[in-house]
Amino acid sequence: MRPVDTLISARWVVPVVPRGVVLADHSVVIERGRILAVLATAQAKAQFQPAQHLDLSEHVLAPGLVNAHAHAAMNLLRGAGDDLPLTQWLTERIWPLERALVSERFVYDGTQHAAAEMLRAGITCCNDMYFFPEAAARAFRDVGMRCVVGIIALEFPSAYATDADDYLRKGLDTRDRLREEPLVSFALAPHAPYTVADATLSRIAMLAEELDLPVHIHLHETAAEIVESIKQHGVRPLARLDRLGLVTERLLAVHAVHLHSEEIALLARRGASVAHCPASNLKLASGLAPVAAMLREGVGVALGTDSAASNNRLDLFEEMRLAALLAKGSSLDARAMPAWQALEGATLAAARALGLDERIGSIQAGKEADLIAVDLSDLETQPCFEVVSQLVYCAGREHVAHAWVAGEQVLQSRRLIRDGRAIDTGAIAAAAAPWQAKVQQLLAAS
Amino acid sequence: MRPVDTLISARWVVPVVPRGVVLADHSVVIERGRILAVLATAQAKAQFQPAQHLDLSEHVLAPGLVNAHAHAAMNLLRGAGDDLPLTQWLTERIWPLERALVSERFVYDGTQHAAAEMLRAGITCCNDMYFFPEAAARAFRDVGMRCVVGIIALEFPSAYATDADDYLRKGLDTRDRLREEPLVSFALAPHAPYTVADATLSRIAMLAEELDLPVHIHLHETAAEIVESIKQHGVRPLARLDRLGLVTERLLAVHAVHLHSEEIALLARRGASVAHCPASNLKLASGLAPVAAMLREGVGVALGTDSAASNNRLDLFEEMRLAALLAKGSSLDARAMPAWQALEGATLAAARALGLDERIGSIQAGKEADLIAVDLSDLETQPCFEVVSQLVYCAGREHVAHAWVAGEQVLQSRRLIRDGRAIDTGAIAAAAAPWQAKVQQLLAAS
Repeated sequence: MRPVDTLISARWVVPVVPRGVVLADHSVVIERGRILAVLATAQAKAQFQPAQHLDLSEHVLAPGLVNAHAHAAMNLLRGAGDDLPLTQWLTERIWPLERALVSERFVYDGTQHAAAEMLRAGITCCNDMYFFPEAAARAFRDVGMRCVVGIIALEFPSAYATDADDYLRKGLDTRDRLREEPLVSFALAPHAPYTVADATLSRIAMLAEELDLPVHIHLHETAAEIVESIKQHGVRPLARLDRLGLVTERLLAVHAVHLHSEEIALLARRGASVAHCPASNLKLASGLAPVAAMLREGVGVALGTDSAASNNRLDLFEEMRLAALLAKGSSLDARAMPAWQALEGATLAAARALGLDERIGSIQAGKEADLIAVDLSDLETQPCFEVVSQLVYCAGREHVAHAWVAGEQVLQSRRLIRDGRAIDTGAIAAAAAPWQAKVQQLLAAS
Repeated sequence: MRPVDTLISARWVVPVVPRGVVLADHSVVIERGRILAVLATAQAKAQFQPAQHLDLSEHVLAPGLVNAHAHAAMNLLRGAGDDLPLTQWLTERIWPLERALVSERFVYDGTQHAAAEMLRAGITCCNDMYFFPEAAARAFRDVGMRCVVGIIALEFPSAYATDADDYLRKGLDTRDRLREEPLVSFALAPHAPYTVADATLSRIAMLAEELDLPVHIHLHETAAEIVESIKQHGVRPLARLDRLGLVTERLLAVHAVHLHSEEIALLARRGASVAHCPASNLKLASGLAPVAAMLREGVGVALGTDSAASNNRLDLFEEMRLAALLAKGSSLDARAMPAWQALEGATLAAARALGLDERIGSIQAGKEADLIAVDLSDLETQPCFEVVSQLVYCAGREHVAHAWVAGEQVLQSRRLIRDGRAIDTGAIAAAAAPWQAKVQQLLAAS
C-alpha cells in the first residue's frame, strides 16, 4: 500500500475530462497538492494508505470552479446602483464612488470579502481586474484562493496610477514581487478598447508574447462602444484589436455581447476565448451574447460573474444555470449549451482562457488538486437522474460542502478554513460595514 | 397593553403595499391568523402583550411568496429529461413516464416533496395544475401550505379521468369535499387551448362566472401552438379564448411568451393576468416573453416556477431575479422590472391573479399572516444598501429562515414544522427514492 496525503472518496466524480463522464463510487488521490490518480474507490482503498481519508457518500466531486471575470473589490459596492441604465450607473454611481473610495485598503477589504464569498460558492480560482492588484493578490492569498491578477492598464489617472505607463510599470513590479506565490498568476488587463490607446495596446501585445501572459479585456459589451469605435477609429473594436496584434489564443474577450458571425469566426480561428457574464449583461441591459453560435463555431466560452456591483452575486452556479438557460432561450434551441458544456465553461474553458489548463480545470492525474464536493442529498436536489444536470440546473452554491485548492482544504462543511483553522467570516463581513457607511454618506451627499 | 398571539419584530419590513416602501425596525402583530397591525417596534412593544415574541434583528420580513404556476407532483421527474427540445421532451420523456406512473400516490408523494421544497424557499402559496388534484390538496394541507388547486380539464383520458366532463365532475366534487379546508382554494384549469375543445372551454367560462373562480390555462407558450391554432381554428389561441368568453379579469394566462402588442393591450384592458415562468421558458427554448411591454401596458405579471421537470428548482427567488434580469436584457432597458416589481410579481400580483389579494400578497392589517423572514446577515448578502434589491438580486432561498401561513409558523430556522413539531424532511425526500427507481427502469427500457 502506497502512503499518500489524502484520499477523497465520493458517490460520484465528474472529472470534466472526458466530456460528460460521471464516475460512480470513485476516489481522487492527492499527493503534495496534486492529483495522483482518479480510480474506483474499491481499488483506491486497496492501493493507497492515505494520511487523511474523506468519505463523501452523498456528494459529487467536481473541479473547483474558475471565475473568468471579476472585479472582486467591488463587493463593497454590491447593489449600490441597481435598476439604472449603464451610463447612469457608471457616471452617477460607480465612478464617483470609486474616485472617492478606492485605496489599497478598500481593495484588500473588498477582495477578501469577495474571495470568501467565492470560496463558499465553490470558486477556487478567480481572474480579477481592478486597481491596486497587489492588494487584491494578498487578499486572495490570505484566504487560500488561487487567483489571476490583472496588470491593469488605462490612460486615465486614478488613486493607483497616473497613466498607462505607470499602470503597466506598477503591475509588472507587482508581478516581480509575487513571483514566488504558488497560487498567484498574472494577466495583462487593458481595461477596454475605449479606455486604452493604440500605443498602449500595441505594447501590451508585445508584452503578452514576451512574458507569456493572457490578455484580459472588456470587449463589445455594449452597442454604444462599437458605434463610438467606428467613429473614432474607423473600425469595430475587435477589428482594431486585431490590427494591433491582440486577437490571438491569449485573448480573453470579456462580455462579447455584440458580435457578427465573421467576428465569431475570427475568434474561433485564432483560438481566442470569451468570458461570458450573463447576469451582468442582462442586468445592465447590454444584450444577449450569441453564445449558442460561439459554441457551434468552436469559440472557448468561459463563465464569469463580473462584479457584485452589477450582478449582485459572485456565484458561478447561477452563471452556469443562467448561461445554459439563456443560450437555449435566445437561440430557440433547447439543446444549446447542455449542462456539461455549462460546467465546462465554469471549469476547463475558463482555465484554458487563463492559460492554466495544464494545472487546473479538470480532475486528471498530474493537475493541481482544486476540487469541490457538492452535497446532493437535500430534498431540493432529489430525485437525481443526471448528476451533471443536477449540478447545473438544480444545485446552488449553498450545496458546496467542501473545497480544496492545490490539495489544501479551504472549505469544510460550509466553513472556511486555512491551515486547518477556521477563518472568521464574521470579521470579514464586518470589515464591509465602515465602507458601507462611507458609501451611504457619499450617496446621500450626491 | 392588549394581549395578542404573536409579535414579530424585524430589522426591516417590506409590506409590498405601499410600493417600494421599506420600514426599518418595524413589527407585525398577529391575532388569530391575521395581521392586526404593522407598526414601529417601539410602539408595538408599548401597545401589545404577545403570547409569543420573535426578535429578528438581521432579517427582512416580507409577504410569503406565491407561486403562480406549478405542477407540483412532477418533482418526482426533476431533471428526467434535460437539454431536449420541447416536443421530444414531452413525447419521449414526460408523457410516457406520466402514462406509466401517475396515480393518487404519485401525486401525493410528489406534491408533498414539492410543498416541502417550496416552504423552505419561502413560498407559502402555490397555484397547482395536475391530475388527482385532491391528492395534491391533501399533500399541501399536510405540510401546512396554502394552495390553489386546479380543477383540471382535458379532452384526453388519463389514469385520473376519461374525458373533459369526467375531469370537470371530479374536480368539482373535490371542491365540494374540501370546502371547509381554510388553506385550500380552487381554480378552473383547462390545460391548454390545444388540449381542450371549444365546448369545454365555453362551459368553463360559464362555471368561472357561476362559481367565482380563476381560470388557469397554458397560453401562447410556443410559436408552434399559435401556428397550429390558426390552422385548426382560424385564429390565434388568445383570440379563440376571447371568442369563448374567457378573456376576463379571471384569466391567468400561463407563459404568454408569444404576444402581439394588440394582444398585450387586450389582456391589459380586460384585467387579465400572466403567469410568467422565465426559467421554464428559457429551458424549453419557448422564447422570451415580452414582460417589459406587458408591465408598461399594465398587465398583471405574476411569477411561476412551472414544474421541476422543466426548471428544475421550485424557487421564486430564482424566478424574481431571472425575470428582472431578463426583462432588462431583452428590452435593452436596465430600468425594466425593477426589484420592487419582481417582488410584487412573486407576491401581490400573483395573489391578485388567483383572486386572493384580499387575503394574502402583502403585509397589511386585515390580511392573513402569510409571512417570510429572510436573513440578510450572511457575508453573501453584505453590504446591504437597498433591502428590496438585496432580496431580489442577491439573496437566495437558502436565506429564508422562517415562514408563517395564516399565522402558523411552518418554517423555523430553516426547518419545517407543523403544529410546533418538526416535519421529517428526510422521510419526504426518501419517499422519492422508489419513484426514482421506477423512472430509471422505464427510461432504461425505452
